[in-house]
Amino acid sequence: MFSKTLCKALRGGVNSFHIKDALKCHVNNSPNILRHHHCMMLPESISQSPDFFFRQLFDNESSTYTYLLADTTTKEAIIIDPVLELAERDAQLIRDLGLTLKYAMNTHMHADHVTGTGLLKKLLPGSKSLISKSSGAQADIYVEEGVDIQFGRHRLSVRATPGHTNGCVTYVSHEQGVAFTGDALLIRGCGRTDFQEGNSKTLYNSVHSQIFTLPDSFKLYPAHDYKGQTTTTVGEEKHYNPRLTKPLDEFIKIMENLNLPYPKMIGKLEVVFAQLLWRNKGNVCGDRRFLQNVSNYTQD
Amino acid sequence: MFSKTLCKALRGGVNSFHIKDALKCHVNNSPNILRHHHCMMLPESISQSPDFFFRQLFDNESSTYTYLLADTTTKEAIIIDPVLELAERDAQLIRDLGLTLKYAMNTHMHADHVTGTGLLKKLLPGSKSLISKSSGAQADIYVEEGVDIQFGRHRLSVRATPGHTNGCVTYVSHEQGVAFTGDALLIRGCGRTDFQEGNSKTLYNSVHSQIFTLPDSFKLYPAHDYKGQTTTTVGEEKHYNPRLTKPLDEFIKIMENLNLPYPKMIGKLEVVFAQLLWRNKGNVCGDRRFLQNVSNYTQD
Repeated sequence: MFSKTLCKALRGGVNSFHIKDALKCHVNNSPNILRHHHCMMLPESISQSPDFFFRQLFDNESSTYTYLLADTTTKEAIIIDPVLELAERDAQLIRDLGLTLKYAMNTHMHADHVTGTGLLKKLLPGSKSLISKSSGAQADIYVEEGVDIQFGRHRLSVRATPGHTNGCVTYVSHEQGVAFTGDALLIRGCGRTDFQEGNSKTLYNSVHSQIFTLPDSFKLYPAHDYKGQTTTTVGEEKHYNPRLTKPLDEFIKIMENLNLPYPKMIGKLEVVFAQLLWRNKGNVCGDRRFLQNVSNYTQD
Repeated sequence: MFSKTLCKALRGGVNSFHIKDALKCHVNNSPNILRHHHCMMLPESISQSPDFFFRQLFDNESSTYTYLLADTTTKEAIIIDPVLELAERDAQLIRDLGLTLKYAMNTHMHADHVTGTGLLKKLLPGSKSLISKSSGAQADIYVEEGVDIQFGRHRLSVRATPGHTNGCVTYVSHEQGVAFTGDALLIRGCGRTDFQEGNSKTLYNSVHSQIFTLPDSFKLYPAHDYKGQTTTTVGEEKHYNPRLTKPLDEFIKIMENLNLPYPKMIGKLEVVFAQLLWRNKGNVCGDRRFLQNVSNYTQD
């Protein structure tokens, strides 16, 4: 009754962590579990502080996740990866909850949707846009590896996780046991590396050195999901990510052969243009407003 | 600088809870908040126990939320409102996490998708289907108001919340501060009452007596959302639900004038038929298997 994992483990094909897991799976005599060959040990989760507000939001159109976080005492809030078309929804929720938006921030410059940070800044005056310096995008505030982003008594640390783009970062709350991985790590997947600044080797190293080194119990929240999955954990992805559990050379081959269609919003200029089209609904883009607005919208 | 709510409160139009909130909003001098007229006080959230596993899942097709809950120590799990087409995804996750599915359960008999409980029972032998007795649906286990559903050391209490259908129930974990409201209460909305056993007055009373009486900090997880919202709280819905904050007569009028299209999967027979169509992909329904299978699929 040895499972494939256990057999592989005994042949030295997996590390000691896997052996321990496989053995533990087999001492459990549940009928559901006996049918399963690769089960992991489910770690206890970290309880979030009562004063840490967390709300996940979704855009059905681009399958993007947006995250609203806040300190319930000071009411200071941040929003991660907002989507332009849903900025009104997000602003209304922020108002409803009596929160003050401090930062509208991105994990990276998106190629598949237009960010909502510019519109949120208008809807909620006083808020500022924030992105990594290495993104090359324009924002009010630039962050880099090792910097802490504070809202109320809470903070997110910035980890550089390039590979999908040069400027990709992961925001980590060590106290709450959560990380926002953008497109670096997706649930049972990862961001594509076949356009713009994509580099498979860089992405692989980013995930292994910056995300898989977090505790197994840490919850991971990506920028996208296409299968109705809302979250995962470091432990789950270390066991079950079909790409990133592979050796580097195999990972590179997988990424080379994805054959994905061209993304909807690739490149800065297209994003700017899409933003302007949206802002000037019904107006002719290319008139004076276009040029005046470019500097306002390239970042956000 | 008095807000509409505060003015209304001072005229006696809202209860003391609203007055307190409105005043608190106005002592906060944040520019974001000053622009807001109806803010509520954000309660501290209840920290979930480290041994309480919670995972929200989504079906893009029918906009249905499915919830997987478990005791991380005993590995006993339950799943609420699974969707037929995603039962394989859910079963895989349950296996990956080394969990044993005890109950595949529904908040009510769905008219907009086919439940995945039947298929989950096949994929994960040993699990049982569960639904309220008053649903009229067939299942292995029937529950009623006041019953506790146990998985490991955790439990969900059953609250009868009819109105969308006669058999609608809300599952509540008092310890974790969460409730699964099915179609009784949706985020800033509620289930329709214009077909099958729908009754607006009954639904209104259910929500006000069974859900709005829970603590404001309790997180509510509905069976559906169509705007990318993943969760809400009792406090939020008591303040901002555009239907259920209205007096009963106004609520009834709103519900009478929704003019919604006919649901996709209305009624038991259609559900059975759809399930059989799916199970017998490519085969002619109406042959012997059809009749043999009816008794297996009417419930789940």
